Amino acid sequence: MAKHDRAKRGIPPKTEFNAWYPAIVEIADLVDKRYPIKGMDVWKPYGWKAMTLIDGLTRAEMERTDHEEYNFPVLIPEDLLEKENRLVSRLKLAREQGVDPAELRIDEEESGFKKEVYWVKHAGENELDVPMFLRPTSETPMYTMFALWVRSHGDLPLKTFQIVNTFRYETKQTRSFIRVREIHFFEAHTAHENQAGADAQIDEDAEIIQNLLHDLCFPAIISRRPVWDTFPGAWYSMAVDVLMPNGRTLQVATYHHYKDQWAKAFELNYEDSTGKTQFCHQTTFGMSERLLGAVVGMHGDDAGLIFPPKVAPIQVVLMPVAAHVDENVLPKVHAVAKELQTAGLRVKVDERDIRPGAKHYDWEIKGVPIRLELGPRDLAADKCVLSLRTGGKEEHPLNGLQEVIVDCLGRIENELRARSTDHLSERIHPFPGISESKSGWVLDGPIDDGIVYEMAFDGKDSDAEVLEKATGLAFLGDCSEPYEEARPCAVTGRMTTRRQHLARMY
Amino acid sequence: MAKHDRAKRGIPPKTEFNAWYPAIVEIADLVDKRYPIKGMDVWKPYGWKAMTLIDGLTRAEMERTDHEEYNFPVLIPEDLLEKENRLVSRLKLAREQGVDPAELRIDEEESGFKKEVYWVKHAGENELDVPMFLRPTSETPMYTMFALWVRSHGDLPLKTFQIVNTFRYETKQTRSFIRVREIHFFEAHTAHENQAGADAQIDEDAEIIQNLLHDLCFPAIISRRPVWDTFPGAWYSMAVDVLMPNGRTLQVATYHHYKDQWAKAFELNYEDSTGKTQFCHQTTFGMSERLLGAVVGMHGDDAGLIFPPKVAPIQVVLMPVAAHVDENVLPKVHAVAKELQTAGLRVKVDERDIRPGAKHYDWEIKGVPIRLELGPRDLAADKCVLSLRTGGKEEHPLNGLQEVIVDCLGRIENELRARSTDHLSERIHPFPGISESKSGWVLDGPIDDGIVYEMAFDGKDSDAEVLEKATGLAFLGDCSEPYEEARPCAVTGRMTTRRQHLARMY
Repeated sequence: MAKHDRAKRGIPPKTEFNAWYPAIVEIADLVDKRYPIKGMDVWKPYGWKAMTLIDGLTRAEMERTDHEEYNFPVLIPEDLLEKENRLVSRLKLAREQGVDPAELRIDEEESGFKKEVYWVKHAGENELDVPMFLRPTSETPMYTMFALWVRSHGDLPLKTFQIVNTFRYETKQTRSFIRVREIHFFEAHTAHENQAGADAQIDEDAEIIQNLLHDLCFPAIISRRPVWDTFPGAWYSMAVDVLMPNGRTLQVATYHHYKDQWAKAFELNYEDSTGKTQFCHQTTFGMSERLLGAVVGMHGDDAGLIFPPKVAPIQVVLMPVAAHVDENVLPKVHAVAKELQTAGLRVKVDERDIRPGAKHYDWEIKGVPIRLELGPRDLAADKCVLSLRTGGKEEHPLNGLQEVIVDCLGRIENELRARSTDHLSERIHPFPGISESKSGWVLDGPIDDGIVYEMAFDGKDSDAEVLEKATGLAFLGDCSEPYEEARPCAVTGRMTTRRQHLARMY
Repeated sequence: MAKHDRAKRGIPPKTEFNAWYPAIVEIADLVDKRYPIKGMDVWKPYGWKAMTLIDGLTRAEMERTDHEEYNFPVLIPEDLLEKENRLVSRLKLAREQGVDPAELRIDEEESGFKKEVYWVKHAGENELDVPMFLRPTSETPMYTMFALWVRSHGDLPLKTFQIVNTFRYETKQTRSFIRVREIHFFEAHTAHENQAGADAQIDEDAEIIQNLLHDLCFPAIISRRPVWDTFPGAWYSMAVDVLMPNGRTLQVATYHHYKDQWAKAFELNYEDSTGKTQFCHQTTFGMSERLLGAVVGMHGDDAGLIFPPKVAPIQVVLMPVAAHVDENVLPKVHAVAKELQTAGLRVKVDERDIRPGAKHYDWEIKGVPIRLELGPRDLAADKCVLSLRTGGKEEHPLNGLQEVIVDCLGRIENELRARSTDHLSERIHPFPGISESKSGWVLDGPIDDGIVYEMAFDGKDSDAEVLEKATGLAFLGDCSEPYEEARPCAVTGRMTTRRQHLARMY
């Protein structure tokens, strides 16, 4: 695509990611941001289709792992929050009593979601007796019902999920898919007989997210978040961070092990096979439209989006060439389209009467993986031309085209995986080190805030705080892939296999 | 199912419909009504699956007719309502000026949804500058955006839909699916170049609803609602009423012709091919979870639900019989299940270790269309036993079973259609007539409020009011199937082909 065309369509170069991203989501017609509430975009058909394809992958994983789909009300009565607040306070107290105070960093957010929710206190002309709020997430309403549903060990495991809209009164700057006020959200909630059951669920969640990342064609850093960044009420939180082109990490998924902490707050118990009452152990797993934000940011280029084939709303766009000079072109293009569609591919015939160049640019911007051209000369030679959005043009015979297309889509997936994996490894650098001098802690080298720093780290919360202050970056937590051999901790010098990352987070 | 079993499970006889309906939606595990907000049920997996299957039929119709799926924010700023209110006031005025006042019955509701919405006036700890409300329907937010999207005739027709949650602060008694406060809602909104385009859309909507009713296996009365029951801002409203077993009609769908009335309020215009600015003509089409309510109410019987095959979450339940005496039974049952599943059928193998009778009752309650039993003797004879939920047991060879099942499902559909069509025609009686005496209007015969009364009617609004008062029933409006030959109007005696119905509406 020539530079002046790109400029005409208003796409900044991708190196200017903070300008490119908001431009491309509108130019590719994924959303319209002109809705009169900031942070609440209108999903256009192309964006919504991509999102529902991602949801489809999620639902397939849920079915494979025997989760069942529920749908809970959006509104939550305020009084249900009391149990949650008691839980969070109790955990806070326990930590304060049981742990070295220097190791504790309690976030404000642990006081619950109250400061971040939209309130419904009026209906019609009435003020409500009990105020309600729009769900930010569904622990509270779900566990209220779980306590009614679970009676005996025969009711367990209970594996539920829903795909719904959630709400957060976001005060930071909003960004389509990444930080919005109405969130297209996936949440799985499970209850098990014991900790081993919940442990196994955490392993299953790790597998599910790997399958999804494979289909979306990008890698992630998976970390056990530090204590101070653990979800309120969780025993521990696993987070899945994707590295965006500007060097910031985007948390696209989290899964939490609750042990029996929430169960105790919500009296979620059951009768075991010996007749004894036991508390359930629970987990949750959350993802959102951020997955689409990551797809957009990770794979796009200067010319527009590049959709991974599994979630491309259109996988193949067919362009009749010079159909006006040969009346056989159009019927053949439609026949090919039908053949591909029957094979389960998502295709579109672009018959618009505009110049071919303009068509190319449109589908380039929209990130359609394969462009198929077929004109009179191709027809005569019984072939067509395929252009891959990741680069390259190929001629193929029309006979057996379906297999060729499937193969091309697979190669595009591999190319996208290779690119995003390269991007990640290029952007992870070893931490330059830090030394204590008379004037305090001093970094042994410069820090670039577009880089993720990796290190062995085995220090306390206070050591982590030193590193975060010195670098202006944040700890992602214990990487799920520790070092194979122990190395010295960046602060204490103690030998450890704990691999940790410092990054600028979204 | 023996009577004592039914009673044990808490299912009242269906003749006591007002008790049967709320009992069955919970016993069949479609929803849980114990959520702590009245009128907001929790969708359980079985109910949610049925609803998404209905949505799937709707989406297929939308795709067939080139509608595209959008997703708009739930929250609407109050100031957007001003345009809507101005529109409604203007129409009211026009009617008052142009029409015989005796013909006008303006409903309170025409002042907008303000009295029926949930308000969001607070977020976090702040009071919002502009109050927002949860959408009751999406004309206002959608047409605000349509006005940005439509520039020229090339942008038309614009055919949109969304399937979302909407909200109504319902003050009447709530009933699952029928009258709820959070509503699972389908709405299509279209914009056209002229009235002919909108007229054609209304015809298309009529076709769509007929296709859906065919798949859901029940008939409906389709009427052009009287002026006083027209949707605010609409030129006219078409309503689809289903007759429930208690004789009340349930409005399950509406489609409205807006002409250019809303377009004028929202400045929704375009440049035509001659360069002239024209207002769009619009239509909308709404349906909701009431369709599922109608499925439940219409087809169920004393033993539980009966799902029409197209929306049955499970179409065939397979029951291994005496699997403990023949180790070949279970593998064969799973092989059959796999074969049926591969053919696109929704199947489930019930391997639970409980007595067969209990299994039968469970699937009877849940309305699974076909129960397939396979035991050692069947295996030896290479056959199985099919029980149809609509009645009847059949033996069939295992070879070629898939075609047999598809045929059975078709017969079940036909049987359900026959039953519901009979029900409707039995419940529609000719209106007994009304006569004016010295003491006022007197009915010529008794009125049964479980019956729908049909008549030729060509009177004024005031005549209609007389009939509604005398009968305690409501006019559904002009039936979409008028009489072939003119008959005398029930009030004026004038000859007319206008067929009208009086009914007790939900």
